Amino acid sequence: MKPAQQGLIPARHGSMALVDAGQSIRVINTHGQQVVDTWALCRGDPAEYLSMEHTRAGLSRLRPRVGDVLLTNRRRPILAITADTSPGVHDTLIAACDIYRYHGLGCTGYHRNCTDNFNEQLKQLGVPPRQPPCPLNLFMNIPWKADGSLEFAAPPCRPGDYIELRALMDCVMVFSACPQDMLPINGAECTPTDAHYSVMGA
Amino acid sequence: MKPAQQGLIPARHGSMALVDAGQSIRVINTHGQQVVDTWALCRGDPAEYLSMEHTRAGLSRLRPRVGDVLLTNRRRPILAITADTSPGVHDTLIAACDIYRYHGLGCTGYHRNCTDNFNEQLKQLGVPPRQPPCPLNLFMNIPWKADGSLEFAAPPCRPGDYIELRALMDCVMVFSACPQDMLPINGAECTPTDAHYSVMGA
Repeated sequence: MKPAQQGLIPARHGSMALVDAGQSIRVINTHGQQVVDTWALCRGDPAEYLSMEHTRAGLSRLRPRVGDVLLTNRRRPILAITADTSPGVHDTLIAACDIYRYHGLGCTGYHRNCTDNFNEQLKQLGVPPRQPPCPLNLFMNIPWKADGSLEFAAPPCRPGDYIELRALMDCVMVFSACPQDMLPINGAECTPTDAHYSVMGA
Repeated sequence: MKPAQQGLIPARHGSMALVDAGQSIRVINTHGQQVVDTWALCRGDPAEYLSMEHTRAGLSRLRPRVGDVLLTNRRRPILAITADTSPGVHDTLIAACDIYRYHGLGCTGYHRNCTDNFNEQLKQLGVPPRQPPCPLNLFMNIPWKADGSLEFAAPPCRPGDYIELRALMDCVMVFSACPQDMLPINGAECTPTDAHYSVMGA
């Protein structure tokens, strides 16, 4: 299928795609170690959006997988996972990074972050800055144990691994190639890299 | 210590308490099987609030326990868990129930729900209706497995079990005695009951 739209998610920056119901979005981990924070908002009403806490309740699972339907905060289907060449390790638990996170890790001054990337993208649509919903953190490796403890680990992916999401309503997709370089969440080298997406017509 | 303020959280309804930094809030599972959806908002700026996704990141754990400090969406400490006579089973993963949830379970017409309870309470402070943050679901039993699957189970609590939270900033606490009566999350009898709280002076 020929992509209708292709795009770069530049390292440490955000990107946005307008996607129609029925189209599919492929998100590509181009270099294999990049986490892509991902949001989907209903076009026309950004107060309705892909919600991790509603999706976990709907799926009865911590992590979605191929075949799953993801829900908005009004429990409407917004995305379906239709393919995944990666090992299927994605995260629904961890907030987007923000300036407070980097300051807590010892950074002084400004540090690019997924929260600001989200708002930078939405500003182009005239949406005022807001607390982003908890993102779907594609390729992010947060293993859990029986006692509930969590780890922050490197993605178990290979270059070119991708996940495919089919839009079940018209939506605005926002991506952020996570700027985290103080923890090994984007690989042991702590070096954010570009990722890519393509939108494939219905 | 003599409580400065005591309150009822009526079955299926919400309740609110204004708590100063340094005061403690005891939330009591009076009849032993009631989930209490709990929110904390910064007094004076309800755009800052207790956030489950920021707290999980800060704790590196799915579920908080005695000694833990819970964080806002700006990663500031807002509550500390100082005591817990229950088995410590609380939930950070599941959205507040809402009318869409009950319609999805087959209810027709209106059903009381935690989302509306949250907004009913905040209306008294002049705060407009909003999507509630993911609540801290006190006494809610959502066991996880190694494969990430979740269950909705009855609370493992006894009548009178309580948890104590110390406020680390001035906050508005909102509680909802979850009206869920279509799943056994409030016990096998699917019958929501009253719960109680008390605020103890600094």
